[in-house]
Amino acid sequence: MANSKYEYVRLFEQPDTLLPNTWIVVRIDGRGFTKLCNTYGFAKPNDKRALDLMNAAAKAVMADLPDIVLAYGVSDEYSFVFHKTCQLFERRASKLVSTVVSTFTAFYLHLWPTVFSGGLVDDVPLVAPLLPTFDGRAVCYPSVQNLRDYLSWRQVDCHINNLYNTTFWALVQKGGMDSVEATELLKGTFAADKNEILFSRFQINYNNEPEMYKKGSVVFRDYELVDPANTNAAQTAAAADNQAEPPTLSKSKAETDKKRRAKARITVEHMDIIKDEFWDRRPWLLTGQPGTLPKQL
Amino acid sequence: MANSKYEYVRLFEQPDTLLPNTWIVVRIDGRGFTKLCNTYGFAKPNDKRALDLMNAAAKAVMADLPDIVLAYGVSDEYSFVFHKTCQLFERRASKLVSTVVSTFTAFYLHLWPTVFSGGLVDDVPLVAPLLPTFDGRAVCYPSVQNLRDYLSWRQVDCHINNLYNTTFWALVQKGGMDSVEATELLKGTFAADKNEILFSRFQINYNNEPEMYKKGSVVFRDYELVDPANTNAAQTAAAADNQAEPPTLSKSKAETDKKRRAKARITVEHMDIIKDEFWDRRPWLLTGQPGTLPKQL
Amino acid sequence: MANSKYEYVRLFEQPDTLLPNTWIVVRIDGRGFTKLCNTYGFAKPNDKRALDLMNAAAKAVMADLPDIVLAYGVSDEYSFVFHKTCQLFERRASKLVSTVVSTFTAFYLHLWPTVFSGGLVDDVPLVAPLLPTFDGRAVCYPSVQNLRDYLSWRQVDCHINNLYNTTFWALVQKGGMDSVEATELLKGTFAADKNEILFSRFQINYNNEPEMYKKGSVVFRDYELVDPANTNAAQTAAAADNQAEPPTLSKSKAETDKKRRAKARITVEHMDIIKDEFWDRRPWLLTGQPGTLPKQL
Amino acid sequence: MANSKYEYVRLFEQPDTLLPNTWIVVRIDGRGFTKLCNTYGFAKPNDKRALDLMNAAAKAVMADLPDIVLAYGVSDEYSFVFHKTCQLFERRASKLVSTVVSTFTAFYLHLWPTVFSGGLVDDVPLVAPLLPTFDGRAVCYPSVQNLRDYLSWRQVDCHINNLYNTTFWALVQKGGMDSVEATELLKGTFAADKNEILFSRFQINYNNEPEMYKKGSVVFRDYELVDPANTNAAQTAAAADNQAEPPTLSKSKAETDKKRRAKARITVEHMDIIKDEFWDRRPWLLTGQPGTLPKQL
Repeated sequence: MANSKYEYVRLFEQPDTLLPNTWIVVRIDGRGFTKLCNTYGFAKPNDKRALDLMNAAAKAVMADLPDIVLAYGVSDEYSFVFHKTCQLFERRASKLVSTVVSTFTAFYLHLWPTVFSGGLVDDVPLVAPLLPTFDGRAVCYPSVQNLRDYLSWRQVDCHINNLYNTTFWALVQKGGMDSVEATELLKGTFAADKNEILFSRFQINYNNEPEMYKKGSVVFRDYELVDPANTNAAQTAAAADNQAEPPTLSKSKAETDKKRRAKARITVEHMDIIKDEFWDRRPWLLTGQPGTLPKQL
Repeated sequence: MANSKYEYVRLFEQPDTLLPNTWIVVRIDGRGFTKLCNTYGFAKPNDKRALDLMNAAAKAVMADLPDIVLAYGVSDEYSFVFHKTCQLFERRASKLVSTVVSTFTAFYLHLWPTVFSGGLVDDVPLVAPLLPTFDGRAVCYPSVQNLRDYLSWRQVDCHINNLYNTTFWALVQKGGMDSVEATELLKGTFAADKNEILFSRFQINYNNEPEMYKKGSVVFRDYELVDPANTNAAQTAAAADNQAEPPTLSKSKAETDKKRRAKARITVEHMDIIKDEFWDRRPWLLTGQPGTLPKQL
Repeated sequence: MANSKYEYVRLFEQPDTLLPNTWIVVRIDGRGFTKLCNTYGFAKPNDKRALDLMNAAAKAVMADLPDIVLAYGVSDEYSFVFHKTCQLFERRASKLVSTVVSTFTAFYLHLWPTVFSGGLVDDVPLVAPLLPTFDGRAVCYPSVQNLRDYLSWRQVDCHINNLYNTTFWALVQKGGMDSVEATELLKGTFAADKNEILFSRFQINYNNEPEMYKKGSVVFRDYELVDPANTNAAQTAAAADNQAEPPTLSKSKAETDKKRRAKARITVEHMDIIKDEFWDRRPWLLTGQPGTLPKQL
Repeated sequence: MANSKYEYVRLFEQPDTLLPNTWIVVRIDGRGFTKLCNTYGFAKPNDKRALDLMNAAAKAVMADLPDIVLAYGVSDEYSFVFHKTCQLFERRASKLVSTVVSTFTAFYLHLWPTVFSGGLVDDVPLVAPLLPTFDGRAVCYPSVQNLRDYLSWRQVDCHINNLYNTTFWALVQKGGMDSVEATELLKGTFAADKNEILFSRFQINYNNEPEMYKKGSVVFRDYELVDPANTNAAQTAAAADNQAEPPTLSKSKAETDKKRRAKARITVEHMDIIKDEFWDRRPWLLTGQPGTLPKQL
C-alpha cells in the first residue's frame, strides 16, 4: 500500500535551524516547582539534595551530548551552552531543546532515589501524577561577550535571589515572622541591608553561606588549568569570534579530540564565572578544542 | 545589586508562537530506541509491555494537558493534537514541545517498573546511562482535512511497517533465515505477497494479529457516542474550520466545560481513524466542546 | 578560480516559507506619506488622483502576478490576497513581499505623470529625493473566515477614518477652525455625532460622499456574476477550507485556466466586501477557479 | 463604530525581528532582467549606463538609510550592509527588505531618463508593463569574518562571471560564433584559458578592462583614510565583534555623529574588498563610528 496520498502533510513541517556561528544556550526550567517543593518537602531556602540532583542530571546531559561545552545551574533552572561551531541535529531548535529536556528529565527521575533516599527516615518516593518535569527553549548569542553576559546575568540573578531568600527564610524560620511581615520588611532594602539583618539578628555572615547557594553550579570538562600569564580571555574570545565556520578537522585529529573529550572528567564547581579569570584559565571552553588531560587520569 | 548591565541579553530571545487558528501536532520519537530495545530485551517485532508503557505515558500527558484533544501512537512515536483554538503557553512552540516531551519522559520512566516488572523473572530495571529519552517537534495544520490526513499518514505507516516487520521476523524467528536473507526475500514485495508468505509458510492470518499492532493506539476523552445518522464529519469539519477565533466563553460555561472534561475517562483504543466513522461518532474531537458523559460514570 | 572558500556563507540564509494551505495577505503601506502629501499638494481629506494612482498600480500588480485573487486598498495602503493554494516563489515571504512592493512602486512612479499631469497648470513632477516608496509585510490566514475578517477589518477602518477625516477637514476648511480646535471638538464623538455635524453645519450628507472614499477600492478579475440563489459564501468557504492541498491539475486544464484568467478584465470597484453578497456572487475569489468570461469580451 | 469584532486578526501577524548584534545584509536582485536587457537594448556583456544607474540608485538608498554602512553591487544585484548595532525598524526583516527594495526601485525608475536619455538618438523611455523591478531578502552574519567572506564571495563571483561573459561575447560579437558554439568552446576552461583566448584571438588584455566590470562597485561614506601602519582590520574586527550591545551614546555625541555622517560624501569605487587593505584604511566601516571628514569639504 502506498502512503503517497497523505504524504503531502510533510510539507507543513517548517525548518527551525538556528543561525550558524552563534552560541546556542538551551535553558530548562522546572515546571510548577513551588508545588513540587512543598509536596516532597524540599528544605527552604535551599535544599542541598535537590541541587545535587539538578547537578547530577546536568552532568549526565553533558556526558550524553559532548557538543555542550558548559552548563550553569541555579535553583530549578539549568543553562546548557553548545559551542558556536556545533552542528548537532543540524542545529534544529526543537531537536536540541527536546533532547536536552528529555535527557535531563530522565536522569532527574532516575537519580531521585539515590539522592532522596539516604536512609529509611529520609525516603521520599515520587508519587504520580506530581512528577518533576521541565520546559526549555533555545537562544542564540552571536559573540563571546554576549554569551558571557548571559551567564553573568544568571549568576547575578542567583546572588540577588539567594541573598533575598536567605534573609526572608531567616526572618520566617528563626525570627518568627509570617511571610507577609517578612516581605514587608524586605521591601526596598539593598544588599547591605540584608547582610546587616542576617548578621545583627541571626549572627549569620552571608559570606560564609555555602558557595553552591551563593554562586550556583557550573559544569564543564576538566583539563589542566592554563597559566593566566600566558593567555587572556579577550584574546581567546577574539579568536573564537574569528572562527568563521566549523573547522574541517582531519579525521585523525577529530578522532583524537573525541577520545580526549571522553576521557575528561566532567566537574561541578561553585565559582565566579563573571570575572575573566575563570575563562582565562580554561581556554578550551571558548575555543572548543579539548585541553590537556590532567596527569593523574 | 542591579542586574541591568547584563539584562540586555533577553533581547536575544526570539518569539516562536505558532500561527493562530491552526491545529498543533507535537510528535515525539524515541531517541536511539534500536539500542534501547536490544539492551532491555524488547520482544520483536512488537513488545506488548513497551507499547502499553507508551500508551500509559500518553494518557498521563493528556490528563496533565487538557488542551490535547487526541493522541495517536505507534512504535516509539506519539503524536499529540492540540485543538486549533488552544492558547496554552501562548502557543509558543518550544514551551509546548518541551512540556510534552518532559512529561512523557517522566511518566515513561516512572511507570516502567509497573510494566516491566510483572514478576521476579521478568524484572527489567533501568540502568544508567542508557535511559529512555525522546525528542519532539511541533507542526501546524490549517484545516481539519490536513489534520486528518496527517493522522491517516501515521496510521497507514503503522500498517505498512507492521506488515513488513511481522513478515520479516516470522522469516527470521520461525523460518530460520538471517536478516540479510529476509530483507532480500521481501525486497519489492506487495502487501498481498507478504500476507501470502505469512499464511502459506507460517499459518499466520495477518488479519488476526492484535489490533494494537495493526492499527496503533488512539487516545481520547470518552463521551457518549453520537448517532452517525445525526452528524457527519464533513459538517463538523466545516464548522470547526469556520471557528475563526478562540471562543470567548462565559465564565460559567468555561467552568462547566472544564469539569466535564476532567470527569471524562481517557481511553486508549486501537481502531481505524482514517474513515469518517471514527470522527462522525465523536464530534467533540473536532469541535473541542466536551460531549455528554456516559451514564455509568 | 573556484569560489568554494567563501561559499559557506550561503548557510546563513534561513528559509522563510509560509505555512501551506493558508491565505497569504501582503499589505503595503506608503512610507512617510504625510510629508509626501504636503510636498506634492495632495487634496485633503481625499485626493482623487492619488487614489486613482494607487488603484492603477494595484491593477498592474495583479496583472503581473496572477496568483493574486483580490486586492483591497484604502488611503496609502493596499492589501494583496494570494490564494491559499498559491505556490509562487515556493511561498517565500521575502520574495513575495519584495516583489509586490517593488512592482507597486515601479508602476506608481511610472503612472504618476498620467495622473498628476492633467494639464499645464496641474503638472506635479516628482522631484528627488522625496519619491513615493512603500514598505510591506506578509501575514497568513488559515480560514476563509479569518481572511474575510481581515478584509472587513480594513474596510471598517476605512469607514471610521474617512468619516472622521471628512468631518475634521470640513471643520477646518469650511468651518474656520484650526486643527487643535477640530480635534478637540471631535474627541469622544460617535458616528452619529459626526454625521450630524456634517449635515447641520455644512449641509453635507455623508451618504452622498463618493463610494471610493467611503468604501475603499477592491480589485479583482471580473467574470459573470453567479445567481446568489444557487450558491452561498458559507458553502464556498467550506469547500475552499476543505481543499487540503494544491490541486494537481491536468496540463490542459491548467492551460485553459491560465488563458481564461489572462482574458478576464481586472476591475476596480468600491463596494461592501463585508456582507456575504459580494462573495456569494463571485465564488471564483475563494475557489481560485476562474469563472465564466462575460459575453461581451 | 467599533472595529473590535475584526481586530483579532492582528494576532496572525508574526514577528520577524532579526537576531541582535549580527550584520544584516539585504540583497536585491533584478526580476527577469534578461528580458528587460533585451527589450531596452542593454549592451553586452556590460552596459555602462545600466551599471551607472544601479550605482546611482544604491547611493540614493544609502543617503535615505544612514544605518547602511556599505553596499556592493554587480550586474543586476546589490547588497546593502546594515551595521550589527542597527536598530532601524526594530530589525524587522520585512520592513528592512521592503524599504530597501522600494527605495531602490523608485530611484532606478526616477533616474532612468538621466542615464538612458543622453541624446535624441539614445533616448530609451520605459514602456509599461515591462518595468524594472527587484526582489530582495535579508541575511544575518554574526561575525566580521562572516560578513567579509560574504562580500568576498560576491566579488569573486563578479570576477568569474565577468571573465566568462567578456570571453563569451568576444567570441560571439567579434569571433562570429553563435551562442552554442561559444558555450561549447568555453566548457571546462580555466581563467588562464579565457585570458589566453581574449588575448590571442581578440588582442584584449583582460587586465585592462574597466575596473567597474572586473571588480563591481562598492559604495560607502568617505572619510579621511587611516594610515594602515596605525590600524589593522583584524583588530578592528575583534573590536567590532566585542561590541556586545548597541552603544548608548550621549545625546550630544549622537547628534555630532549624525551630522558628520550627513556631511560625508557617499562615494562609488571599484576596488578590491577582499584583501585587508580596504578595511584597514577605512575602520569606520566596521566600527560604525563616523571617521574624520576630509579637509576639502
